[in-house]
Amino acid sequence: MKSDIQIATEAKMNTIIDVAGSLDIREDELELHGKYKAKLSDELWNRVKDNEDGKLVLVTAINPTPAGEGKTTTTVGIGQALGKMGVNSIIALREPSLGPCMGIKGGAAGGGYAQVVPMEDINLHFTGDIHAVSVAHNLLSAMIDNHLQQGNDLGIDQRQIVWKRVVDMNDRALRHIVVGLGGRLQGVPREDGYMISVASEVMAILCLSKDLMDLKKRLGQIVIGYTYDRKPVTAHDLKAEGAMAALLKEAIKPNLVQTLENTPCIIHGGPFANIAHGCNSLRATNYALKLADVVITEAGFGADLGAEKFLDIKCRKGGLKPNAIVIVATVRALKYNGGVDKKDLAGENVDALKKGLVNLEAILKT
Amino acid sequence: MKSDIQIATEAKMNTIIDVAGSLDIREDELELHGKYKAKLSDELWNRVKDNEDGKLVLVTAINPTPAGEGKTTTTVGIGQALGKMGVNSIIALREPSLGPCMGIKGGAAGGGYAQVVPMEDINLHFTGDIHAVSVAHNLLSAMIDNHLQQGNDLGIDQRQIVWKRVVDMNDRALRHIVVGLGGRLQGVPREDGYMISVASEVMAILCLSKDLMDLKKRLGQIVIGYTYDRKPVTAHDLKAEGAMAALLKEAIKPNLVQTLENTPCIIHGGPFANIAHGCNSLRATNYALKLADVVITEAGFGADLGAEKFLDIKCRKGGLKPNAIVIVATVRALKYNGGVDKKDLAGENVDALKKGLVNLEAILKT
Amino acid sequence: MKSDIQIATEAKMNTIIDVAGSLDIREDELELHGKYKAKLSDELWNRVKDNEDGKLVLVTAINPTPAGEGKTTTTVGIGQALGKMGVNSIIALREPSLGPCMGIKGGAAGGGYAQVVPMEDINLHFTGDIHAVSVAHNLLSAMIDNHLQQGNDLGIDQRQIVWKRVVDMNDRALRHIVVGLGGRLQGVPREDGYMISVASEVMAILCLSKDLMDLKKRLGQIVIGYTYDRKPVTAHDLKAEGAMAALLKEAIKPNLVQTLENTPCIIHGGPFANIAHGCNSLRATNYALKLADVVITEAGFGADLGAEKFLDIKCRKGGLKPNAIVIVATVRALKYNGGVDKKDLAGENVDALKKGLVNLEAILKT
Amino acid sequence: MKSDIQIATEAKMNTIIDVAGSLDIREDELELHGKYKAKLSDELWNRVKDNEDGKLVLVTAINPTPAGEGKTTTTVGIGQALGKMGVNSIIALREPSLGPCMGIKGGAAGGGYAQVVPMEDINLHFTGDIHAVSVAHNLLSAMIDNHLQQGNDLGIDQRQIVWKRVVDMNDRALRHIVVGLGGRLQGVPREDGYMISVASEVMAILCLSKDLMDLKKRLGQIVIGYTYDRKPVTAHDLKAEGAMAALLKEAIKPNLVQTLENTPCIIHGGPFANIAHGCNSLRATNYALKLADVVITEAGFGADLGAEKFLDIKCRKGGLKPNAIVIVATVRALKYNGGVDKKDLAGENVDALKKGLVNLEAILKT
Repeated sequence: MKSDIQIATEAKMNTIIDVAGSLDIREDELELHGKYKAKLSDELWNRVKDNEDGKLVLVTAINPTPAGEGKTTTTVGIGQALGKMGVNSIIALREPSLGPCMGIKGGAAGGGYAQVVPMEDINLHFTGDIHAVSVAHNLLSAMIDNHLQQGNDLGIDQRQIVWKRVVDMNDRALRHIVVGLGGRLQGVPREDGYMISVASEVMAILCLSKDLMDLKKRLGQIVIGYTYDRKPVTAHDLKAEGAMAALLKEAIKPNLVQTLENTPCIIHGGPFANIAHGCNSLRATNYALKLADVVITEAGFGADLGAEKFLDIKCRKGGLKPNAIVIVATVRALKYNGGVDKKDLAGENVDALKKGLVNLEAILKT
Repeated sequence: MKSDIQIATEAKMNTIIDVAGSLDIREDELELHGKYKAKLSDELWNRVKDNEDGKLVLVTAINPTPAGEGKTTTTVGIGQALGKMGVNSIIALREPSLGPCMGIKGGAAGGGYAQVVPMEDINLHFTGDIHAVSVAHNLLSAMIDNHLQQGNDLGIDQRQIVWKRVVDMNDRALRHIVVGLGGRLQGVPREDGYMISVASEVMAILCLSKDLMDLKKRLGQIVIGYTYDRKPVTAHDLKAEGAMAALLKEAIKPNLVQTLENTPCIIHGGPFANIAHGCNSLRATNYALKLADVVITEAGFGADLGAEKFLDIKCRKGGLKPNAIVIVATVRALKYNGGVDKKDLAGENVDALKKGLVNLEAILKT
Repeated sequence: MKSDIQIATEAKMNTIIDVAGSLDIREDELELHGKYKAKLSDELWNRVKDNEDGKLVLVTAINPTPAGEGKTTTTVGIGQALGKMGVNSIIALREPSLGPCMGIKGGAAGGGYAQVVPMEDINLHFTGDIHAVSVAHNLLSAMIDNHLQQGNDLGIDQRQIVWKRVVDMNDRALRHIVVGLGGRLQGVPREDGYMISVASEVMAILCLSKDLMDLKKRLGQIVIGYTYDRKPVTAHDLKAEGAMAALLKEAIKPNLVQTLENTPCIIHGGPFANIAHGCNSLRATNYALKLADVVITEAGFGADLGAEKFLDIKCRKGGLKPNAIVIVATVRALKYNGGVDKKDLAGENVDALKKGLVNLEAILKT
Repeated sequence: MKSDIQIATEAKMNTIIDVAGSLDIREDELELHGKYKAKLSDELWNRVKDNEDGKLVLVTAINPTPAGEGKTTTTVGIGQALGKMGVNSIIALREPSLGPCMGIKGGAAGGGYAQVVPMEDINLHFTGDIHAVSVAHNLLSAMIDNHLQQGNDLGIDQRQIVWKRVVDMNDRALRHIVVGLGGRLQGVPREDGYMISVASEVMAILCLSKDLMDLKKRLGQIVIGYTYDRKPVTAHDLKAEGAMAALLKEAIKPNLVQTLENTPCIIHGGPFANIAHGCNSLRATNYALKLADVVITEAGFGADLGAEKFLDIKCRKGGLKPNAIVIVATVRALKYNGGVDKKDLAGENVDALKKGLVNLEAILKT
């Protein structure tokens, strides 16, 4: 059996101009990143924004299990199947983080014959969106420290700064650090730490913003910490939102790629599902709905957390209404829920399966 | 008088495909980044590598003064002038750092009517090369800390790690930090610090490497610190060079942009001139020499430091021989060297000018 | 009404030689510290160790309340009363910590006309015992860091060192610190912290040791942390116990002072009652039992914690059997237990008193 | 040949009451610390302060060499010799630091048959003076951090606090530390460090103060750091000097011990000679001058540094005038100055000796 990487490497990709063409997107509405990736321009949006919306299909799963639920693979598979049936469809996914990719988890662009390509690019720098999020995020951190250093007119309590720095890497040694050492000229000592970039509030904001103006406004509302008398301090108080938004003006544009079968796929935004809302950007979903008859998207984590957030946060903010919800519930995952140990999931076990189904029923009732 | 930004914004750019076309580069030899930036592919190199080299012109300046010498502006101006004269020429520059740009210094892509565009893109993320350098650099840092955490088989002395982290920003509070706090699961405590990304040895290596294989080999030779018994430890000892090189496989490709007058300009690599060799990449210069009759490039800092490094390091490594050297010596800079205070440089002062000329003479004699 | 300090200052003290004389202790069996404090020598112990033991009275209290239970005042009062009745009695108390004294809590040598004097000396350096404990404790810390610095032959994991440093002061900024900074010559960076000296395990050990040999053996058994492969490391592994014991050779000798009415009082050792056993030293109690017909001592905290520890730890280790137990239960404390707010404790409230008595009954049943 | 420790252990000490008696000091003018150490009381001073001063002899040495100059041994030897000749003399020395003693240097109370005893006591806690200095010093540190924590009304810049903490131990890992970690309730993070206690400015002040009032005033003048606008902040600004002086009220009293031949010796105060003035306390010298016909004292380091400081600082502050100066210049030290390697100092080398004498001549001319 071929590995995911082999299959991805052997993919026969169309140029992204051709993929876009299949959605009636014109070449000058694209910002190309090499031959197989492109950002969708504001001009495109202005042309299609009054189109009727396509149907929205949400793919979710029962609770997360070590068995792996295959949400992305299912999403890509449905998209490819619809494509083969001649349905004009788009898949809308999150961007995988470089962090876990360089660490343990491996890429997150589907598997087997249901993958998004060019896989390696998507898993590395892609079109630079996560880098831009990291830089915008850390610019705010630098402005906080610079404010402390320049006399701290806002009276920010260095012990109550909640805005940590971010890095797009599993770099555990940076989780708890002390910064600002080295004397009067170097900064004000304080405890700080790094989170992974996709856990950044900037990423969450990017994924919920309608446009650059909305993004800038939301960035300004970020609470970075508290003053000595316990009042919140925002990014706007530090006049940071303008520069942050400038750094994100390309990152806010959705990225177009394709599946192994050349189905269009928009990959944009990747907020963590555990601490943020965990789905791709609202802008990407909106572009997709205007460009295709069916849009298949997914929500991170299981139905109980990820789908809830999708429905309660993203749909409400964006006025979306899914027309169908697919719940991925593999037999392996059900058996796991029924009490089977991870290493025994390959074997048949009908009793465990029955027990595990209770979980699925509960989700269906919600 | 119009500001640099106004002039840059009003530029009438050709598409980068047209700019490349003026050098007989074919569209499929480009990796487009939007309409006005492109990376030059390996395929292009393979086609032109046996062409005869053009002439190489080095622009340098007398010693750096607060008056500003205008090296880049002169370089761009010469390139534009040659273009207007019908000479097939390419300008080859360093990429400006986001760091100083977000801080105080402002962009570094020329000035007035001798600028490189699209200015804003060049000054922000450009094609992501510096981000890639930062990530590759910091991956090595993360692997060092992870090695300490996993038992430290190499016996690395945490007090003798010379490989600091980097960030593409003026973030002074990160210069002296303590990392690895938080207990047994988080890492091994040690002193660390951040430098600006363009000061990274990875940037210096990127700019001196012939190709990806050469890059990988050189990355492996990086000394990251010393063992408890004072033996050097390299990136290769940590098996880091492969992943680092993978992260740099796009960054190693030169970037093509244009001047305000549509002269082709290759911007690639930006090692600091004070601590590294301070000129654009060897690869970029080689591409340029194969594609044009005249290549105008510059070396950071003054003739005594920057040009020396260009001649002694880059030319020797790359087998280059400049055909001409231009020394920028403004009257203001000469007066400054002659003892005039910065704020009085606008006024006439022939005596000071005469005194300042001594410096220029010394350089010419070298 | 006179303040405690006024009363203490006006005390008519006998010389400590006279106080000792009332217990038939000879001058050359004392090590004088000025006129009113003395350490009891080993020679004294050797002379009296075969005497018959006196009666042992333990003073404890119901659960600790903000009303203050007055255990020490009661203990001193009983001692003075017995003295007035002509009973040959000794009071045996803990030494108050300088830490809380310089901070908020104030001294801890009784109150009103039931105090131990010279109060100021007792509350400051006294005879240097707590200083000696601090130095012995911190010597072990210094030896740990020196061991790390000298090559760490024992393989101590710097993230698993449980032996914090101590200071006899409320110095909150020292609770969480990072030590060993400054480069290769200064030490191995690690997280550390300071506790208050009386919380030192050295203090607990000092108070449970029979003699200097026993002390040294117990010091050697201290676990200071764990190796990289999770094995415990002891003070003995660092060869620290000899020097530590040498630093404690005076501190192990009980201190003799007197009450306002010249009743002999031995003050020796002061382990925290919350984390250690919270009563004066076993040696002090043993000396007292050999020298007097009745010994009145107290246990820190309430009966449920302090008295339990006294009975379960100190009595078992030392073969002691209290002949009587006094439970201090003020009406104020009972009312507080009955639900009265701290600020209303002065007023009569029989209902609350009845409710509060439940607590006392529970203790009596134990 | 017997070791120093053997000789010291076999010493036939008189009781300190007898030693004091030889100077006509009455028992009730002493504050005894065991049988062989006593503090000299204020009452004694009041009785003798109008006596005529004895003669003052200063012992110094040529420049410090690794050969060891034997200043203390010479000082003690002269004192003993005068004693044997029937001259009523007192030796006045510095107190050795516990720090170097527990580390490498070993005790500092003379050698051979010219030692001060009880040696072990002197080298360990002695009468607690250095402990008191440490606690008073660190109380000020704690008050600084507490001030930062309580709102920092004085506007102290945490990066410009020059008042480090102290510990009476060679504890290198404490030289550079970060304190105040752990969050809002624990303190304000800042860089700090520990010096050895005898390097404390409190020790220097203690040794130059006339009495407790003078001490308190001088303590109040200590500059602990600077405000954000670069104004000095003193201990008095923090209202620290009262508590500090209270902690030093015993430490300010000179300590009386004896030599192996029972010559009275006052050991009091031990400021480092490299960074402070390096001689025993002014109070001790004054007591000695009132009590004996001849007082032999020494100054730390060589004549060029230590004796200069003695003459320029201590003598001026205290109105002292040495009647004689002894310069210790061993043949070994002269040979070392003449260029002989440390390991060859035992051999005869007249040439080197001649060369080395130049140094001695230079000192004599000063």
